[in-house]
Amino acid sequence: MQSMTNDNTNITSFKKDQLDDVNRIIRVNAVEPLDANSVLRAALDHHLLETGSQSRAQLTLSTSKALGLSLKNQLYLAAAVECLHNASLIQDDLQDKDTLRRGQESVWSHFGSNAAINLTDLMIATSFVLLGHVDSKGCLPRLLICMQRAIALTLQGQSRDLSDDGTTRAVKTSLAVAESKSGPLFALCLELPLIAASELSFLNAAQQAGRFFGAGYQVLDDINDAASDQATENSANVVVALSKVLSAKDAHYEAQAVARHYLDRAHRLAESLPNNCAALLIEYCVMLSQNLRESEP
Amino acid sequence: MQSMTNDNTNITSFKKDQLDDVNRIIRVNAVEPLDANSVLRAALDHHLLETGSQSRAQLTLSTSKALGLSLKNQLYLAAAVECLHNASLIQDDLQDKDTLRRGQESVWSHFGSNAAINLTDLMIATSFVLLGHVDSKGCLPRLLICMQRAIALTLQGQSRDLSDDGTTRAVKTSLAVAESKSGPLFALCLELPLIAASELSFLNAAQQAGRFFGAGYQVLDDINDAASDQATENSANVVVALSKVLSAKDAHYEAQAVARHYLDRAHRLAESLPNNCAALLIEYCVMLSQNLRESEP
Repeated sequence: MQSMTNDNTNITSFKKDQLDDVNRIIRVNAVEPLDANSVLRAALDHHLLETGSQSRAQLTLSTSKALGLSLKNQLYLAAAVECLHNASLIQDDLQDKDTLRRGQESVWSHFGSNAAINLTDLMIATSFVLLGHVDSKGCLPRLLICMQRAIALTLQGQSRDLSDDGTTRAVKTSLAVAESKSGPLFALCLELPLIAASELSFLNAAQQAGRFFGAGYQVLDDINDAASDQATENSANVVVALSKVLSAKDAHYEAQAVARHYLDRAHRLAESLPNNCAALLIEYCVMLSQNLRESEP
Repeated sequence: MQSMTNDNTNITSFKKDQLDDVNRIIRVNAVEPLDANSVLRAALDHHLLETGSQSRAQLTLSTSKALGLSLKNQLYLAAAVECLHNASLIQDDLQDKDTLRRGQESVWSHFGSNAAINLTDLMIATSFVLLGHVDSKGCLPRLLICMQRAIALTLQGQSRDLSDDGTTRAVKTSLAVAESKSGPLFALCLELPLIAASELSFLNAAQQAGRFFGAGYQVLDDINDAASDQATENSANVVVALSKVLSAKDAHYEAQAVARHYLDRAHRLAESLPNNCAALLIEYCVMLSQNLRESEP
């Protein structure tokens, strides 16, 4: 998966210490109930050793700040989304049997499948506790429901992804997977701050913006992975699915067009949100569109 | 595992329709974000077809009622605990590779491991959403933390259980597992209502009562399963662990004494709680002690 934020881009406009705070908050809240010698604690520390791009934390921080939320609320909302994202990575690696994550051994590979399953549970639970730390003037139930919905939609996409076998998968299904796989968590980066800022009338647009951005992000990823996924006949990949009915070149151009469509829609929806709060998501859309133009069959 | 509540005992003093309401609340909140044809929905409906004893829901309802909580709060707190308990069953079956649950195929066996993993995630998330429905006058963050803590302690016990190999397990470890395996969720049945009733000074006693009750419950279970666990050399079983250093008969009597000790402590702590709110837990203690006296090596 392409990184949207590394030191070589100018996207990263957040102070590193805020992102460090986010990670510290995740860790403190996750390990608080655990014994010092717990396997779960060791597995969490192992996973958090490499933080990744923290692009979801950055999106949430940026949106929250633009909406005038307090620094504490910015940090806890970002920690909740980032914690959930990490839970999803640990579980994805287990379900896809990927042995590497961020250049080191994945949790299931190092600590076993059961530790990965248990750590995922703990981190999901911790994401909800982190929302509980937001000073939310009565909107906490709505934050909880919003997060559960994103989890449910992501899992639903994941179940669809895993339950289809590689050979009969339709293009339509692969697109539905692309929409639901990353979209709901990206949407959370906008939705949770909007809820905390009582801007409820924008939730629908935020949800759609996240969904389309996630889909564009996913299809671009599929384009980048097309060669290797073609070799393993992984038709969860949109390009691979398309190449069952089109030539390889046409499948590539069609996937490009689909991704562009998704990113354009995400961009326009993001612009409709208040206080230019999705400015960073718009930057991501522009950057991914650029990457898309440069991709070749 | 022995059932504490079936139609042949006089323990079940709750109206069946309240327990049906609890199940309905769990289902409605869990499936709300899902598509009609989602695998997750089918897996949940399959699992909920058989409700089991719902003893945790009954404990929570009973405690909540004694503390004067509204019917709505009684139901949502009970649903939150019961939902979490069901999540733990689905995951336990997967991790223990048990193919049967409540007389029908377990979720992982019927729908595959990934569906079981995903459904567990959804049900954990739903437990937190259910807490969000409690009219809690500002104590919702504390309810969330309390539930996350119970999850963390259960997972920690589970990790310990699974990571030890059968042959070197010490008696001490098997007792620690017994304490942490069921205790934290039983404690939740008392803790959550106490928090919602703002009776915070009793939380420590409630937590210990749950922990000791869970441990007694677990050791009695081990006594009942001793023969089969001895055959498979499953030294997660306290009796099997004890029989490595004692004769089979002495191991049985020692386990009986340990379970009696746990149940007595749970009983006394439960009596210290306000409004006789743990009356049902005390009934359970008395009933399990009776079962214990009747058990034979």
